[in-house]
Amino acid sequence: MKISVFIATSLDGFIARLNGDIDWLLNAGDTNDPEDYGYSKFIATVDCLVMGRNSFEKVQSFPEWPYAGMRVVVLSRTLNTIPDQAVGKAELSAGPVEMLAAKLRAEGLGRIYIDGGKTVQSFLRAGLVTDMTITRIPILIGSGLPLFGELPGDIALDHIETKAFPSGFVQSRYEVRK
Amino acid sequence: MKISVFIATSLDGFIARLNGDIDWLLNAGDTNDPEDYGYSKFIATVDCLVMGRNSFEKVQSFPEWPYAGMRVVVLSRTLNTIPDQAVGKAELSAGPVEMLAAKLRAEGLGRIYIDGGKTVQSFLRAGLVTDMTITRIPILIGSGLPLFGELPGDIALDHIETKAFPSGFVQSRYEVRK
Repeated sequence: MKISVFIATSLDGFIARLNGDIDWLLNAGDTNDPEDYGYSKFIATVDCLVMGRNSFEKVQSFPEWPYAGMRVVVLSRTLNTIPDQAVGKAELSAGPVEMLAAKLRAEGLGRIYIDGGKTVQSFLRAGLVTDMTITRIPILIGSGLPLFGELPGDIALDHIETKAFPSGFVQSRYEVRK
Repeated sequence: MKISVFIATSLDGFIARLNGDIDWLLNAGDTNDPEDYGYSKFIATVDCLVMGRNSFEKVQSFPEWPYAGMRVVVLSRTLNTIPDQAVGKAELSAGPVEMLAAKLRAEGLGRIYIDGGKTVQSFLRAGLVTDMTITRIPILIGSGLPLFGELPGDIALDHIETKAFPSGFVQSRYEVRK
């Protein structure tokens, strides 16, 4: 089972400002540009999206649930139940990530998509991530929520492909070396 | 006058481990590969290298002074004199970086090369950097000395070019938007 990261960061490695804002990302590039940076192609290969509680709360504030038709697991040690408005849209997992990954693998899933800094960091620390597609936005924001965090040891990667877009976004795909 | 960054970082944004080690960088790629990632072409355009005290001390521990023929300024508020073995090789500046940049510009220099995390961060905070060439090594090291730091505000960049090398190193060149 592939466990995949697909995420955008500032050049200084942040996925959001400290308050969660992604204005710098939404305003980057040409907002009329229909380029989706491979997202729809990627998402078509995904069987389940795993996100943390922070991302889940952010997504619930959106006018529309953006993951219709996608299985979503919310990783949280503190949530006990899914809020009413999200019932049928998302399921809960208290982790740890090793157990969640084993469960989804046993169900025969081909690919899970892990989203959010803390979730990505948990899966990386557990040695579970298989591949990462990281899109660098040409801006420095100075502080924010980092994509990466501390690790028990180095993680070597194989570079698969890099694409630069007219917007200045640079997307690199890596596989975690086994 | 161009004020340029040319540096390698881990995918998680570190230029060295916390103790200064760059083993992860030296061991990356094929050590027999003669590829220099554009360094000699870049250095041929440089009139002066500006580094911090940490980099200066690191370089003095090398068996040979690697910057023969290059003007070197060491930026330090704590050093009062250049050590005997480096006299004639490097000069001191107590900063601030705005004054150093003004002095070098007044001397008619075309390009200065700023090296080391703290030095790069000081020049970025002062809004003085004109362009950055960043080479991403395909490894996560989890912790270390970061290339980037806090900023007084966002810095927008123009992406100029990205090259991926057979070693998996990905080099992107940016100009700071004026």
